[in-house]
Amino acid sequence: MSGYSLVIHGGAGAIREPGRFEPSLRRIVAAGAAALEQGATARDAVSLCVTLLEDDPLYNAGLGSVLNAEGRAECDAGIMDGRNLMAGAVAGVGRIKNPILAARAVMEKSPHVFLIGAGAEDFAAAHGVALVTESYFRTPERLTDLARAKARNETALDHYAPPTEKLGTVGAVARDRGGNLAAATSTGGMTNKLPGRVGDSPVIGAGVFADNASCAVSCTGVGEHFLRTTLARVVGFLIEDQGLDTQAAADAAIARLIGKVGGVGALIVVGRDGVCARAQNAPGLLSAWARDGDIEVSTQ
Amino acid sequence: MSGYSLVIHGGAGAIREPGRFEPSLRRIVAAGAAALEQGATARDAVSLCVTLLEDDPLYNAGLGSVLNAEGRAECDAGIMDGRNLMAGAVAGVGRIKNPILAARAVMEKSPHVFLIGAGAEDFAAAHGVALVTESYFRTPERLTDLARAKARNETALDHYAPPTEKLGTVGAVARDRGGNLAAATSTGGMTNKLPGRVGDSPVIGAGVFADNASCAVSCTGVGEHFLRTTLARVVGFLIEDQGLDTQAAADAAIARLIGKVGGVGALIVVGRDGVCARAQNAPGLLSAWARDGDIEVSTQ
Repeated sequence: MSGYSLVIHGGAGAIREPGRFEPSLRRIVAAGAAALEQGATARDAVSLCVTLLEDDPLYNAGLGSVLNAEGRAECDAGIMDGRNLMAGAVAGVGRIKNPILAARAVMEKSPHVFLIGAGAEDFAAAHGVALVTESYFRTPERLTDLARAKARNETALDHYAPPTEKLGTVGAVARDRGGNLAAATSTGGMTNKLPGRVGDSPVIGAGVFADNASCAVSCTGVGEHFLRTTLARVVGFLIEDQGLDTQAAADAAIARLIGKVGGVGALIVVGRDGVCARAQNAPGLLSAWARDGDIEVSTQ
Repeated sequence: MSGYSLVIHGGAGAIREPGRFEPSLRRIVAAGAAALEQGATARDAVSLCVTLLEDDPLYNAGLGSVLNAEGRAECDAGIMDGRNLMAGAVAGVGRIKNPILAARAVMEKSPHVFLIGAGAEDFAAAHGVALVTESYFRTPERLTDLARAKARNETALDHYAPPTEKLGTVGAVARDRGGNLAAATSTGGMTNKLPGRVGDSPVIGAGVFADNASCAVSCTGVGEHFLRTTLARVVGFLIEDQGLDTQAAADAAIARLIGKVGGVGALIVVGRDGVCARAQNAPGLLSAWARDGDIEVSTQ
């Protein structure tokens, strides 16, 4: 099989002004598709797409990451290669321009899977990943978001208010022309979050998962719900062990998210057969997909 | 059903002088069994047992945690309640006497599942969890271990040397007389690890998992292998979705650990039916179990 498949997402929730995301989603999925067309690996393609999503301030990852209760960005990212189940993740990093590149460095250049905080930043810097100052993340829009969140919910530590706006996070899943799968997810987390809070995005099997035996998955939504249900991994089980097809597995995983914990979110999948799928119970999902030259964009 | 089941572990690997662990394992499993006998919840029982394991310097968790490449303890712990899939975890904490109590505070007193680093420490302290100074963890034995590791492997950052000695980590899984399941895991990680490295112990679905619909699981071994295979979650899936019995699921999960990533380790399980199981491909596993008054201890 010489085709390729690619799906990207830019977060789920109540999407305001969806039209402003469409050109960006189209540009980024086209860049990934062009790379796959020219023979890039799935690993390279998802890394490229997530880097571009991080660099676009429209999304809550990299530049554009939301700020925690102390006004700092704390980014999380994870990547997994379905060919050999190698994986890398970082959490709580505030000085890395592209957290997904730090996650990739952990996967490729350390014996570890998961590095956090200053240790992750120092490791990434030592392996050539670009650093920025904290002010890089303090965009006017995110400072406004934080002020609004603080005004609305002064006790965010102890009372959970489900976010009514877009749940951030970006991700990409791909199958390359060699038949290998990969997945990547990156996020700034939740506005006004407790310092040190980590969601599902960097957690292998929760917000990101890839195995050539089943599929590549990236999730977005309320991270705690995906952590408690290991939802990305569930999609893999349903395909590899239960024999569901790709779309049925995506739908069944969202049904399980609801049934097990009353969760809210969305996920994108590329199956081992190259089928692109998405499923959601969030009101909207920013996504785009490309398969063998065809490109579609959706903000619903 | 009015019975109870409890399994604890104190790590896997090549166990030196196994006799020195037996009295401790017996004492701690008996304390947990007594609590369950008197009606304690599974959540309370696993929390109690892991606290006692953390307080015993024989084990690599809490007091006795191994030191990272900078000579500091960075502890990780996770807990999950199978009744409602509530979960709590902390990683990279160096000032908390009992990391499992910090994980429990995250589960019970925050809207989050996973807190890391100083944010986790500050949250725990604000909720009454006891802090210690860093020197608490610098026991003579662990300083010696670190010096030996540094002498043997000066490039631990870039070359992976599988540990030949005991792989630390402690854990407990229980089913209470009400039929509810819970699991808890705590570790100091690996001697001479890169600062910021997180293993499987605090990661829901990797080193710890509980769901009344299937089982409670705690893992020990090379954390990266368990992260990449989400191994604790695999056991649950095999019971709930594939219909395997508890011991068969434990064995099949270890087979998958080997088949998927060539991993090394062990796990303990209590099934929804109260059956206690363990499985391993590590050469030894420190464990003990109690069921309705009977207690057994194993160092094999």
